Amino acid sequence: MQTMNDLFLDTLKDIYFAEKQITKALPKMAKKAGSPKLKQAFEKHLTETEGQIERLEEIFQMLDVKPAAKKCPGILGILEEGSEVMQEAEDKDVRDAAMIAAAQAVEHYEITRYGSLATWAEQLGMREAKDLLGQTLDEEKATDEALSELATADVNAKAA
Amino acid sequence: MQTMNDLFLDTLKDIYFAEKQITKALPKMAKKAGSPKLKQAFEKHLTETEGQIERLEEIFQMLDVKPAAKKCPGILGILEEGSEVMQEAEDKDVRDAAMIAAAQAVEHYEITRYGSLATWAEQLGMREAKDLLGQTLDEEKATDEALSELATADVNAKAA
Repeated sequence: MQTMNDLFLDTLKDIYFAEKQITKALPKMAKKAGSPKLKQAFEKHLTETEGQIERLEEIFQMLDVKPAAKKCPGILGILEEGSEVMQEAEDKDVRDAAMIAAAQAVEHYEITRYGSLATWAEQLGMREAKDLLGQTLDEEKATDEALSELATADVNAKAA
Repeated sequence: MQTMNDLFLDTLKDIYFAEKQITKALPKMAKKAGSPKLKQAFEKHLTETEGQIERLEEIFQMLDVKPAAKKCPGILGILEEGSEVMQEAEDKDVRDAAMIAAAQAVEHYEITRYGSLATWAEQLGMREAKDLLGQTLDEEKATDEALSELATADVNAKAA
């Protein structure tokens, strides 16, 4: 990895891998959710994630590179932790609170990666890519906020 | 894990493990940093992290529980990824840009965990713990912003 372009492409492959893993995890989380609103939030985010994958594929196309995933230990660790806590929580409401926290850890991983990618795209003069990455970044931040609201307005009080 | 208190304690042990791992990673990152400002940022954050560990120990004490760490696959994956990218980057400036992104992934992991813990502490009526967690949360957010500034004002332009 010798140039900023290499770093950009490497990180694009990393988040492409991460998004694919997330599409596998979300249906399991939706299935385990006790709160109907939480289930709905996970289902909505699955649809959104599929759109985010398409945006990444558009950027690969702009770079004239075949979309490829690079194994990303960060997201694997975060998802492993989420899956552990889902199994360990014996109470339905506590499990919901734990799943919100696990999903927010995923969102924050994505926020940081899309934040770096958008900044690098701007530095590299890739305007269109920067816009696409910025759109996804906004969606991830909105999902994180929606989960915080769901936690404080509904789930945490039931769990406590 | 049957109650919100169990979930709180479990997550406290998770972030306690994460902070200890971070104190091991930061000196290596400071050593590898090419930009003197980035080196300084990592060194400053190491001192801050030591204070954050003390706050966690205070909270364990409030709960009358001996401080204990629980293996946290999330932070291990994020740090592994950071260590990989540090080795893969052959250019000094590209490595600095990559290390900032890696450090911001760590910050975002901490932001999400401290965010959940602070919200749960409030729900559980643990005012003092909530204040301590909130102080650390503010520090992590400030570190993340400082890293973003360093990237856009200095490091990225050199790397591009």
